[in-house]
Amino acid sequence: MVFLVEMDVNIPTTWDEDKLKDYIKREQETSQKWQKSGKWKYLWRVAGQYSNVSVLEVESPDELHAIISSLPLFPYMDIKVKALCKHPNAVRETLL
Amino acid sequence: MVFLVEMDVNIPTTWDEDKLKDYIKREQETSQKWQKSGKWKYLWRVAGQYSNVSVLEVESPDELHAIISSLPLFPYMDIKVKALCKHPNAVRETLL
Amino acid sequence: MVFLVEMDVNIPTTWDEDKLKDYIKREQETSQKWQKSGKWKYLWRVAGQYSNVSVLEVESPDELHAIISSLPLFPYMDIKVKALCKHPNAVRETLL
Amino acid sequence: MVFLVEMDVNIPTTWDEDKLKDYIKREQETSQKWQKSGKWKYLWRVAGQYSNVSVLEVESPDELHAIISSLPLFPYMDIKVKALCKHPNAVRETLL
Amino acid sequence: MVFLVEMDVNIPTTWDEDKLKDYIKREQETSQKWQKSGKWKYLWRVAGQYSNVSVLEVESPDELHAIISSLPLFPYMDIKVKALCKHPNAVRETLL
Amino acid sequence: MVFLVEMDVNIPTTWDEDKLKDYIKREQETSQKWQKSGKWKYLWRVAGQYSNVSVLEVESPDELHAIISSLPLFPYMDIKVKALCKHPNAVRETLL
Amino acid sequence: MVFLVEMDVNIPTTWDEDKLKDYIKREQETSQKWQKSGKWKYLWRVAGQYSNVSVLEVESPDELHAIISSLPLFPYMDIKVKALCKHPNAVRETLL
Amino acid sequence: MVFLVEMDVNIPTTWDEDKLKDYIKREQETSQKWQKSGKWKYLWRVAGQYSNVSVLEVESPDELHAIISSLPLFPYMDIKVKALCKHPNAVRETLL
Amino acid sequence: MVFLVEMDVNIPTTWDEDKLKDYIKREQETSQKWQKSGKWKYLWRVAGQYSNVSVLEVESPDELHAIISSLPLFPYMDIKVKALCKHPNAVRETLL
Amino acid sequence: MVFLVEMDVNIPTTWDEDKLKDYIKREQETSQKWQKSGKWKYLWRVAGQYSNVSVLEVESPDELHAIISSLPLFPYMDIKVKALCKHPNAVRETLL
Repeated sequence: MVFLVEMDVNIPTTWDEDKLKDYIKREQETSQKWQKSGKWKYLWRVAGQYSNVSVLEVESPDELHAIISSLPLFPYMDIKVKALCKHPNAVRETLL
Repeated sequence: MVFLVEMDVNIPTTWDEDKLKDYIKREQETSQKWQKSGKWKYLWRVAGQYSNVSVLEVESPDELHAIISSLPLFPYMDIKVKALCKHPNAVRETLL
Repeated sequence: MVFLVEMDVNIPTTWDEDKLKDYIKREQETSQKWQKSGKWKYLWRVAGQYSNVSVLEVESPDELHAIISSLPLFPYMDIKVKALCKHPNAVRETLL
Repeated sequence: MVFLVEMDVNIPTTWDEDKLKDYIKREQETSQKWQKSGKWKYLWRVAGQYSNVSVLEVESPDELHAIISSLPLFPYMDIKVKALCKHPNAVRETLL
Repeated sequence: MVFLVEMDVNIPTTWDEDKLKDYIKREQETSQKWQKSGKWKYLWRVAGQYSNVSVLEVESPDELHAIISSLPLFPYMDIKVKALCKHPNAVRETLL
Repeated sequence: MVFLVEMDVNIPTTWDEDKLKDYIKREQETSQKWQKSGKWKYLWRVAGQYSNVSVLEVESPDELHAIISSLPLFPYMDIKVKALCKHPNAVRETLL
Repeated sequence: MVFLVEMDVNIPTTWDEDKLKDYIKREQETSQKWQKSGKWKYLWRVAGQYSNVSVLEVESPDELHAIISSLPLFPYMDIKVKALCKHPNAVRETLL
Repeated sequence: MVFLVEMDVNIPTTWDEDKLKDYIKREQETSQKWQKSGKWKYLWRVAGQYSNVSVLEVESPDELHAIISSLPLFPYMDIKVKALCKHPNAVRETLL
Repeated sequence: MVFLVEMDVNIPTTWDEDKLKDYIKREQETSQKWQKSGKWKYLWRVAGQYSNVSVLEVESPDELHAIISSLPLFPYMDIKVKALCKHPNAVRETLL
Repeated sequence: MVFLVEMDVNIPTTWDEDKLKDYIKREQETSQKWQKSGKWKYLWRVAGQYSNVSVLEVESPDELHAIISSLPLFPYMDIKVKALCKHPNAVRETLL
């Protein structure tokens, strides 16, 4: 099943630059691991904002949560999740 | 360029069923014309809601507006638009 | 998979009492059909409000949407949907 | 009586990992004590979010507050509470 | 148990004066019946607004809902409900 | 005159336990002093939340402010204030 | 005592021009009667919006409500009310 | 002085097409009259939305209000107004 | 021209009492300097809240900003600004 | 293409004055570099607020993001972005 996930990052203002760099590096590694697995289909930056929009195709809500909560910045993000389904006007047969 | 567009439909409560059917039919025709043109890439229903999430690839903000505002239900929708760009962690080379 | 669905009803103020009664009767029939099917697990009223909270167990987001959008009052409700999954602190082995 | 309780966790950004682990461990112990008592009926994770949805059956609002406020993370959560009652369309005779 | 209930009235703009007067009269009769029963403890107007704040003491959430939903203007009000309990700093032994 | 006051407490996450205990103790002393004076009529806990709802009867808005701002946690609370007056449907002759 | 009152007008879209003119004329008469009485101290338009900001000096919250609710457009306005008091940094001895 | 004005249009759902066309034609005439006068500097459409963003240079808040409230759709728009001034980092000497 | 300015103060929770006292003292000095200049016409406390409402009469938006941003607590306040103008129903000839 | 960008600055309360000055200096340098490049067309201060409104003309959403995210205060700002296009009522042939 397919989910649209919007994440707004709130970097803690008490972190020094080394800690921030370490988090950003581990965030990248985790996110790219899931993209390469084929489950994280799209990862877009919202132009001008510290936010991203993602599309994930997973087996279950539990798998979605396992992926999102594995991100090191997970506790510091505001996250919105929408389960997607076929629109009656959609020309495309499949969701992705 | 690529935009994420979320549309929430607010059907006027004064419309009778014939008027509503007519609008829904014309909405479908317009939306499918743009999907077939290759500019409206994805059209998803948000599960359980009278809302959709769409991804469009257009030449300019003016073209985006021309497409969205050609929908017969355009005056009766709450619409959110996000311009998307490449995320530094994205594995995929292109946006779509 | 299990979804929590909150519905707030906005009765159109232009409806006369007969139309309202007809909708309420058909709403009840539809909702009870799905409850008896075993897919609509819980249907609760929020005390003091024209709102309900429901728990549904379905095969897919598409099935969730098919059930919710079959309600006659669907176009006149504000609806919030949350996909649920196992909490690490949950004692119960299954979601329901 | 039955309450729906939604909790969003806001981990203080100044906590180090040891403090956080200690809180998470005590949170789990407290939450599982109440689940085993039979009063905390359901504890679900909202997929993709640091939030949970719970259903509690208690003797009184005072008992509800005693349970929720005994959680170590209580001061660091945004909490919404809804008192539930029988829906006129509900097929099930009892709330749970 | 004791609930704080806030009600904002949204008079439908399509009602003529006779219909409005009839509703207001029946609203008064219903509200006063419950006040005289001893269950609707306080009914206050919020100064300068078409809103009221009420305190009700009831046997259960179901009874609260039966009282509030018996008001003729119930479908046309935004309603917030808070279950109250004893505050640790309260000097008074009982809630009311 | 009578005011309804809702207070949500936001404990600073940087406070250690001693500082928190000291504030809670002084908060209790101040709040109880005003309750015993007869001006702070009701102090209720909102079930499941770090919030309270209070009813105060004072001589003037200035006196209301003097009371609320004397609470040690005043700078760390979100506070909503509503001036109350007689509702035309109220059976009770006085506000309290 | 002194209140700041903000009113946003929502003209019902179903009114014809005669009805609207009649309301606007009666609104003006009522508002000017209270201004001339000395109780409605200031009536300002918010530049560019169908809103006003007012300052009233009244004997009680009940009198405030009597004045505001006597406006013919009262049921069609969103209204916010703030009770004002002396600021510790104010140079002026009185509120007005 | 310079103001940024954002207008969201809410077309009344009860209007027929002739009435709507008439309003749109008069809206255009009024808006273009002010643009040609040199006071309405910029009028932009927000891509994908029934909204506009405008920049006006006027003599006073009263003149701003006279211009905006002369628009036939003024009663049917949500309007936000920001007074602009020189930013300390601005390279440009003047606002426009 | 006349502006209504609402300021909500958010004292940083990391400040010690000396730092806070110093800011409050300098805030008072700055605010009183502007009141005595005749430009800051009214400074009111909102009863029960750490907020104020002010009315300023200035030469330009730039002067308004110069005054407000000279307050030591300026970076720690949520501020709303409304430009005021003559209301067609106002009896008073001038704004102040 | 042209974007309207609104930025609200949230200075971390834990920064000392030297760190703040350093950020403000680098913020100014970065912002002026982009203004001189001709891409950042307007930079306005919102009167009375720690916010700015900007108009940028860029080649793509990616370029917009490159500019905005190069600001040292980027992680500490709430940012809203609107893509602008030609309004049917605009007299001016071009957007800028």
